[in-house]
Amino acid sequence: MRIGGKLYRSIWVREDNPGVVSVIDQRKLPFEFTVCELRTVEDAFRAITDMVVRGAPLIGVTAAFGVYLAAMNSSKEEFEKMFCRGFKPPGKEKEEEGVADFMKSARPTAVNLQYAVDLMMQEVDCSGSREGMIDRLFHRAMKLAEDEVSRCRMIGEHGLKIIRELYKKKKRVINILTHCNAGWLGCVDYGTATAPIYMAHDAGIPVHVWVDETRPRNQGSRLTAYELGEHGVPHTVIVDNAGGHLMQRGEVDIVIVGSDRTTRNGDVANKIGTYLKALAARDCGVPFYVALPSTSIDYGMEKGRDIEIEERDGREVTHVAGWDEDAMVEREVRILPEGSAVRNPGFDITPGRLVTGFITEKGVSKG
Amino acid sequence: MRIGGKLYRSIWVREDNPGVVSVIDQRKLPFEFTVCELRTVEDAFRAITDMVVRGAPLIGVTAAFGVYLAAMNSSKEEFEKMFCRGFKPPGKEKEEEGVADFMKSARPTAVNLQYAVDLMMQEVDCSGSREGMIDRLFHRAMKLAEDEVSRCRMIGEHGLKIIRELYKKKKRVINILTHCNAGWLGCVDYGTATAPIYMAHDAGIPVHVWVDETRPRNQGSRLTAYELGEHGVPHTVIVDNAGGHLMQRGEVDIVIVGSDRTTRNGDVANKIGTYLKALAARDCGVPFYVALPSTSIDYGMEKGRDIEIEERDGREVTHVAGWDEDAMVEREVRILPEGSAVRNPGFDITPGRLVTGFITEKGVSKG
Repeated sequence: MRIGGKLYRSIWVREDNPGVVSVIDQRKLPFEFTVCELRTVEDAFRAITDMVVRGAPLIGVTAAFGVYLAAMNSSKEEFEKMFCRGFKPPGKEKEEEGVADFMKSARPTAVNLQYAVDLMMQEVDCSGSREGMIDRLFHRAMKLAEDEVSRCRMIGEHGLKIIRELYKKKKRVINILTHCNAGWLGCVDYGTATAPIYMAHDAGIPVHVWVDETRPRNQGSRLTAYELGEHGVPHTVIVDNAGGHLMQRGEVDIVIVGSDRTTRNGDVANKIGTYLKALAARDCGVPFYVALPSTSIDYGMEKGRDIEIEERDGREVTHVAGWDEDAMVEREVRILPEGSAVRNPGFDITPGRLVTGFITEKGVSKG
Repeated sequence: MRIGGKLYRSIWVREDNPGVVSVIDQRKLPFEFTVCELRTVEDAFRAITDMVVRGAPLIGVTAAFGVYLAAMNSSKEEFEKMFCRGFKPPGKEKEEEGVADFMKSARPTAVNLQYAVDLMMQEVDCSGSREGMIDRLFHRAMKLAEDEVSRCRMIGEHGLKIIRELYKKKKRVINILTHCNAGWLGCVDYGTATAPIYMAHDAGIPVHVWVDETRPRNQGSRLTAYELGEHGVPHTVIVDNAGGHLMQRGEVDIVIVGSDRTTRNGDVANKIGTYLKALAARDCGVPFYVALPSTSIDYGMEKGRDIEIEERDGREVTHVAGWDEDAMVEREVRILPEGSAVRNPGFDITPGRLVTGFITEKGVSKG
């Protein structure tokens, strides 16, 4: 997708130097656009732990490239330690650990990360040539990235049909509401919930996106608004409280959100607040779609109630980060009294009965 | 209610000087507690326009005391101009205007303000003695304030019964969710939605309040959390996205909100986002009550769709105000890209079908 008119992905290998993997520093968006260059497995580890990169697919791909960098930019001795004997990563207590365990520990609960690292390790063969292995790791990481892009592109193609149908019927701008950032920044390209939007926009269908700001971390106003704006998609940011009112007034034609995990019965775990929008969509007769790669469907889990909901740091509720226009720096301000307690559940469960359909890379299935 | 262990109302006449009306500067809460002293009708006017005071009942009472101050602290000549001939208020273009028109223009859409000023003007008799009139204006303003307090106290008494029933049934802490600030700060004492909460707490029933932060202006985290905390009521602030999830998990026993206006069919105009919580309450089987003085029921309006929804300044969405803990000042930070549009509807309509009951000073009626 475009930033400042130029095509970007959220992660790429430098053309002039295959030893450098570049990522956009997402902590600073939308106020500063900075590219971070990763040269070592430790760089990749820190990019994940420090949230330079976020979003399950991008975390997985970054970890894969981390494994590649471990092989690419190490001496023969380091290489053997990391891949064949175990090493002591900086800041880690454990004496000896392989590169896979190290990389996986960056965000222990991220399933995509575990999966990506395991795939990479299939290329490791300590009895073969080091050069051949570096080459195979490079291609495996590139393929992982391309697979993410393909899945998102197909989600986009399938979702585009739904938007096109709406446009044929309404013959005016199609208003799409989305929550949080299920955008290309968290994937590699296209995004999940945003893929149909970008496809429709690029196909000349007039779309307008209502962007929920998505407290507490404001990924909607910070990231979704940024990426839509840079790609030229008309959009309007609203507080999370406003979406229901807009649906009541007929100003939303379709809701599309992403999903962190969807259980076998169609219950959708997604960013906190998704459930409230699904209820309003149902009450107002607005179609509510969940866009996700089929890899996010957890067939091993029966229903949403079985999903443990992460309780996050209370500072996300007590403080808001933003741009100080006087000092031209980003800073945090506290927005509530010191003595007040806070609770910060990160996700909620939208029951499958409220979902009109699931848009995956394989097609659209009814909710 | 209590602040720092001391009993307060949101407006009071200084005991040692009946020419001074004191109000709490609500713009600075919860970070600074400052009392503003109003000595002239212009002081009262500015307290309303600058939002030193807010909340419909408090605005009305402040305007009433403004009319009283106009009489109390003016020379004989000023007095006659303001009440009997018309005067030119500072900063106003119109040549001559009476004190009533001046005061009413502070917030033209505030119904309570118009009503309170009209009541005050019934005491004006330019053929009688000035001293007698000042006396009558004082007592009329005091009565207006007392009437607000009585209504809120009765709302509290009726709401207390509902909470007491819940407590009898559940025999544990009763979790109450509220949205925005329908608290004593916006009234004179007790508040509307908070009145049953304070009454229950003071009666020894263990209550805990989930406080929606209430973007965009954060009246929940700034004012409701503050007043509950100062009065000693256990509470937890959550982002507006979280309430539905808590209801799904059985962590909310009852929702109580206020209302800016309720139409004849029971549709409730209240702070944006109220509708989403009402939907979640219905979906989760949680009782949803609206606490309001009967004066907020608009029998002349049939249904919620007839209510015009105020679109507010976009800066409330693009910026967040909070406490800069380094500089120890309040400041605003921008939270979204410069190029993104925003929409900021101030209220939404909760259909009467979602309301379990209305708690007024007259009793509880079914929704």
